[in-house]
Amino acid sequence: MRTSAALTKRKPPTKARKPAGRVPAALSQDSREELLQAAGQIMTERGTVDVALSEVSQRSGLNSALIKYYFGNKAGMLMALVRSVVGKSIGQLNNLVKMPLTPEEKLRIHIGGMINTYYRYPFVNRLLHHIMTEEKDSFGPLVGEEIIKPLVQAQREILEEGIKLGVFRPIDPMLFYLHIASSCDVLFHASLTLKYGFGIEEVTDSLKRSHSQQLYEMVLNGIKAPPHTP
Amino acid sequence: MRTSAALTKRKPPTKARKPAGRVPAALSQDSREELLQAAGQIMTERGTVDVALSEVSQRSGLNSALIKYYFGNKAGMLMALVRSVVGKSIGQLNNLVKMPLTPEEKLRIHIGGMINTYYRYPFVNRLLHHIMTEEKDSFGPLVGEEIIKPLVQAQREILEEGIKLGVFRPIDPMLFYLHIASSCDVLFHASLTLKYGFGIEEVTDSLKRSHSQQLYEMVLNGIKAPPHTP
Repeated sequence: MRTSAALTKRKPPTKARKPAGRVPAALSQDSREELLQAAGQIMTERGTVDVALSEVSQRSGLNSALIKYYFGNKAGMLMALVRSVVGKSIGQLNNLVKMPLTPEEKLRIHIGGMINTYYRYPFVNRLLHHIMTEEKDSFGPLVGEEIIKPLVQAQREILEEGIKLGVFRPIDPMLFYLHIASSCDVLFHASLTLKYGFGIEEVTDSLKRSHSQQLYEMVLNGIKAPPHTP
Repeated sequence: MRTSAALTKRKPPTKARKPAGRVPAALSQDSREELLQAAGQIMTERGTVDVALSEVSQRSGLNSALIKYYFGNKAGMLMALVRSVVGKSIGQLNNLVKMPLTPEEKLRIHIGGMINTYYRYPFVNRLLHHIMTEEKDSFGPLVGEEIIKPLVQAQREILEEGIKLGVFRPIDPMLFYLHIASSCDVLFHASLTLKYGFGIEEVTDSLKRSHSQQLYEMVLNGIKAPPHTP
């Protein structure tokens, strides 16, 4: 995931010293990506999706007029960020569904993948919620079409395959989706719960892996079909 | 839960017509409760915990000076609302832990109880998060001490009892707490996900019951000790 890696990467210091307001000689996919990276970085650092265009311009060292050029407006930029961050994951999930793996294995990879996405982009769920709340007449419904429905559909196919093979018991796919999405994400928006409830200051890679492992085991056992009694 | 019922109850219309700014002849526990009820009602209706003191005053028909009198300031009022809404549930949970029930039964009642709390007060988790974020030096740490730690401790005792009896497998209590809290709550802060992803406009009592049932079954099967192989 090249875009993903780029989004979390810090700018080298030389970049930050360039005057804000720069318009690159040749507009390119790169400056578009740089704006999205800057927005994502600020959201990650600040723990909120409330980001001003002037900050994105300053952080990227690019003229804020480019935001209008590439995305139309701020809402367009936020939707582009969602597509950049979650879009590829959905493509990968659709590939995963078709792979010659057991449904249990697909579920393990899917849960691990969701947790990794939230680990890299802890703002994702808040951003989806922000767009659905604030852009009811434009991008809100598109979040449903482009993000939620494809995710639910892929999960549904994995569940149905498992039920057909007799390894999963019947389960409501909507409630399953809500359960998985919230419990994958919880570690990454619960920093203050971790701090005040458990004295934990940082979500380390090791904690993330324990979370992934425990959640996968609970979910897999949770939907496992009961053993046949002879 | 008398307080709980009172908090969700709508004011009768006659109340709304009373002039805002009223100071009751005798200050009583009632006007304190009325202010908390008003704050909770506004949060529930608006889907946000961002409530102005003037709105609480107007809704309750009570002078906003009473907020200072009872709670010191707005943060104090928000913390009082948390204590009012969650405090009794924690007391009930502590009683539940000691009851002569199986650990599975305790877990079922606990999950159902948490879901009912979120159903009645869909703002609770956002309010806890708001206090921990905005009141780092005053009430934030108290949320850890008064809410999170007692909840985790009660869950831990249920888990340990089940492990001791050989019905639950070992599980990390912190990750378990995060998993349960987020997945109980998800149905009640996901109204836009339900709308745009599934075309559902309202969380009905029936949907809440399905959620409770599926979550309990998944969690119970998820932590069930593997059957003994002879």
